[in-house]
Amino acid sequence: MMIINSKNITNSEVAKAIKASIRNIPDFPKPGVQFKDITTALKNPEVLQLMADTLYDYYKNKGITKVVGVESRGFVIGSILAYKLNAGFILLRKPGKLPADTYRVDYELEYGIDGLEIHKDAIDPNDVILLHDDLLATGGSANASLQLLRKFGDNPIYASFLIELLELEGITRLGEAIDVFSLVQY
Amino acid sequence: MMIINSKNITNSEVAKAIKASIRNIPDFPKPGVQFKDITTALKNPEVLQLMADTLYDYYKNKGITKVVGVESRGFVIGSILAYKLNAGFILLRKPGKLPADTYRVDYELEYGIDGLEIHKDAIDPNDVILLHDDLLATGGSANASLQLLRKFGDNPIYASFLIELLELEGITRLGEAIDVFSLVQY
Repeated sequence: MMIINSKNITNSEVAKAIKASIRNIPDFPKPGVQFKDITTALKNPEVLQLMADTLYDYYKNKGITKVVGVESRGFVIGSILAYKLNAGFILLRKPGKLPADTYRVDYELEYGIDGLEIHKDAIDPNDVILLHDDLLATGGSANASLQLLRKFGDNPIYASFLIELLELEGITRLGEAIDVFSLVQY
Repeated sequence: MMIINSKNITNSEVAKAIKASIRNIPDFPKPGVQFKDITTALKNPEVLQLMADTLYDYYKNKGITKVVGVESRGFVIGSILAYKLNAGFILLRKPGKLPADTYRVDYELEYGIDGLEIHKDAIDPNDVILLHDDLLATGGSANASLQLLRKFGDNPIYASFLIELLELEGITRLGEAIDVFSLVQY
């Protein structure tokens, strides 16, 4: 396992502006958890532009042809990136939501398991993929997402997140030469 | 109840191109239903651009300050519209997903009930609102969405959909001078 590139802009003015717009919610969804609420960032037009434009600047020359968003918060900035990169947008969804033939990967949560699916016709052999989700925490759903994308072959894969929670070390579960860019880190 | 404006472009070349990219899935999610699968449209970069740009052209001079997307397919084109309109993006989510104080409206499904929530700090008194979802079918979730938005006052509200299923007459449940634009109709 090797991380060849983990970019961040944590100390930049951009990151500070984004962090200032993210709301901390104590004890959600359960006691002891500090939930990072991005709805206060998304509802601010300037911050919405800043988040999308900063990610776009990083990916604009990488030849991305498909942006893959993870249900459901990953659909928000992910679809803007697809639009701006002139790429297609692919939905990774919870089991049972996608109507055609799918691949499925299950992954463990703290209590129980969850799953993600992708349509079998979502990715072509020559696609360059940008995976996007709002949060990199333990890396469980990101790891499952990468497993799904690997079913299509060895397409180049980039991964982007709005927020990375460093102490949970989720990035260690992405591995295998994945280029990771998290806008802000805690 | 009065519909003052229901725009459509059903017979245009744009609508034909969009329709040609939407996949029909028979008997999903249950026997007898013809499911309109937009994933084949979203993964096509040209169609993604066409859908977002056509809606943007209609709303660009209406002073929209907040785009409200309905979980979860409404997040896709909805967030692109927010970005392009330089508006904030608001998430209407299933119950229990939003971490701060919310308003909630429940609505009937064919079997059982479902609900939608919005943060109480999502809408300001001067906001001009664009509600967006992928599908207008029976109008149950659209009606619930409008009930939620009306809790904030009498903000102007526009409503946009990618697909309208005419025979289900969902538009009759939107009423009260709502301006509705559906990209394609069946």
